[in-house]
Amino acid sequence: MLDIKVTKTETPKAKPAKDDPLLFGTIFTDHMFIMDYAEGKGWYDPRIVPYGDITLPPAATIFHYGQGVFEGLKAYNAVDGGVNLFRPDMNAKRSNRSSDRLCIPEIPEEDFVQAIEELVELDKDWIPNEPDHSLYIRPFIIGTDPFLGLRTSAYYKFIIILSPVGPYYPEGLDPVGIWIEDDYVRAVRGGIGEAKTGGNYAASILSQVKAHDEGYSQVLWLDGVYRKYIEEVGAMNIFFKIDGKVVTPMLNGSILPGITRDSVIQICKEWGYDVIEKRIDIAEIEEAWKNGTLEEVWGTGTAAVISPVGKLRMGDEIMQVQDGGIGELSQRLYDEVTGIQLGKVKDTRGWIVKID
Amino acid sequence: MLDIKVTKTETPKAKPAKDDPLLFGTIFTDHMFIMDYAEGKGWYDPRIVPYGDITLPPAATIFHYGQGVFEGLKAYNAVDGGVNLFRPDMNAKRSNRSSDRLCIPEIPEEDFVQAIEELVELDKDWIPNEPDHSLYIRPFIIGTDPFLGLRTSAYYKFIIILSPVGPYYPEGLDPVGIWIEDDYVRAVRGGIGEAKTGGNYAASILSQVKAHDEGYSQVLWLDGVYRKYIEEVGAMNIFFKIDGKVVTPMLNGSILPGITRDSVIQICKEWGYDVIEKRIDIAEIEEAWKNGTLEEVWGTGTAAVISPVGKLRMGDEIMQVQDGGIGELSQRLYDEVTGIQLGKVKDTRGWIVKID
Repeated sequence: MLDIKVTKTETPKAKPAKDDPLLFGTIFTDHMFIMDYAEGKGWYDPRIVPYGDITLPPAATIFHYGQGVFEGLKAYNAVDGGVNLFRPDMNAKRSNRSSDRLCIPEIPEEDFVQAIEELVELDKDWIPNEPDHSLYIRPFIIGTDPFLGLRTSAYYKFIIILSPVGPYYPEGLDPVGIWIEDDYVRAVRGGIGEAKTGGNYAASILSQVKAHDEGYSQVLWLDGVYRKYIEEVGAMNIFFKIDGKVVTPMLNGSILPGITRDSVIQICKEWGYDVIEKRIDIAEIEEAWKNGTLEEVWGTGTAAVISPVGKLRMGDEIMQVQDGGIGELSQRLYDEVTGIQLGKVKDTRGWIVKID
Repeated sequence: MLDIKVTKTETPKAKPAKDDPLLFGTIFTDHMFIMDYAEGKGWYDPRIVPYGDITLPPAATIFHYGQGVFEGLKAYNAVDGGVNLFRPDMNAKRSNRSSDRLCIPEIPEEDFVQAIEELVELDKDWIPNEPDHSLYIRPFIIGTDPFLGLRTSAYYKFIIILSPVGPYYPEGLDPVGIWIEDDYVRAVRGGIGEAKTGGNYAASILSQVKAHDEGYSQVLWLDGVYRKYIEEVGAMNIFFKIDGKVVTPMLNGSILPGITRDSVIQICKEWGYDVIEKRIDIAEIEEAWKNGTLEEVWGTGTAAVISPVGKLRMGDEIMQVQDGGIGELSQRLYDEVTGIQLGKVKDTRGWIVKID
């Protein structure tokens, strides 16, 4: 149990106006959590302080060698008047797995969750009430050792910041276009693809820009070895409904193990769907699309929850799905997951952690 | 031509003592260079200021998505009393190539070099005079946009810091042991392996730690697809002398295009060696070692210049080279390159830039 010292801001900021679109990740609340680490001392000085700039030596590891990991989850104003977190223990576990890969010291799961809870409790008035709005929570850990040699840092900071967000797609639950990337690669087995670390995202920016320029909102990555097996989408895992079955890439070491992905798999199984996690050749998807059995495609992720895919572009071919509309299962999953998060749908799986 | 505003420190630090081992990248000089970038405005406000901490919003891109690149080069106290830089134009060019891959705005080559020159000129008293000592120069660019969405940053900082360094291997030019990594992967074609960006180094830390624990100072990476073609060593490119010929992996998109690598290739060719840049199967090296034609192995990099390799560990096999001693060509290359850098050997190729 952390003994978190709280220093409240003396100059609270104005909350966003009711009609502010709350563009993802642009506005931050009044406070943030910080905890330091030093080799031989462990994690120390957990504290909540006014949100503000951080000061680091220019030689700090994170500026040069990318030794950092992050997480993302949300807090919701529930229909019962309380505040809900969705499976924060899963973020704590994944953060530690990412840290293991990056040689960053682990944080006890209960401390990770406690820090989130206390910070969200303090800034809960920042959670927006409008439909599809929430408070995005960004925990991250950075190496801060002022040392240019290539080794693991002896000093770290664990920081949590909060950002009130509107719907990820301001136009509403509207199907997105996906660009299948056949030139650049995000990650490869043996690499850092399954860790939530900056390097994977840095590798993806160029493709993301290219896809945007062509009018597609996300990139679908293929594997780095054969260049034909489906991995994941920019900020999401990907699902296909083919001939009544739900199919998604298996976790193979280069794919991020999404928490929404895990939740959707569990829900689909409970609903009686065959859910198949396997290596998926992009040719299988093309084949299913050609023979009319590609019924739905959607992405899953914390930011957008469920993101229906209306079209996939592969080379010169554009595969349209559901006539570009929202599939029935995609919509049902969106309603179920967001329903649980908001407390509208009964939480039968112990996924909700209430803050009070 | 940049108009660099200079603010000198009012509290100069004590220079390191003459017998300080100057461990790589731990001590920094009195000043640093900073230049900012904003979308629509370009690079602006180039300035030299006292070395000190930098202040950033916790949402800054570099902390989350790894959008940053860096360079490394050195300044030397030359035998003629002046200060030498070694091929700084190559660092400027490579920095821009790295930036292109990471969607970071380019810096005009002449501005990049000018910033280095003016900073080194101001802090030239920090360049150590002892043999094999120099002033390590670390230019780096970081995305500073306080925005959690995954897109290219609208704001950057270009910073240069300086660190007086002793020999990379304090024991002197002593052959190192290399661990051939067959489990983890650094980079893959289509990825960011040829860019000098944090993500590649973050991916390498775990292997580096493992190799160190086993008593090896560096890791040799194999390709991410076939897991058998030689890529590069942790902080260096790698060369083999086999049956009189010089062989090194070709630049394939996942290998860092080293400046010392390029210099060594040119020098070896001028010395009459056949230099072969090609895809090298690790089995070829094993074969050459077994039949006695693996004459020398060495790494090339700015930090260590030439690093003779005394043994290579592959699985359960340890391949010893040159009876663990320094090869004749490795030593000759070390003397030639460091000779040029220090002005002891005539610069016939226009590689030296003098600062005055």
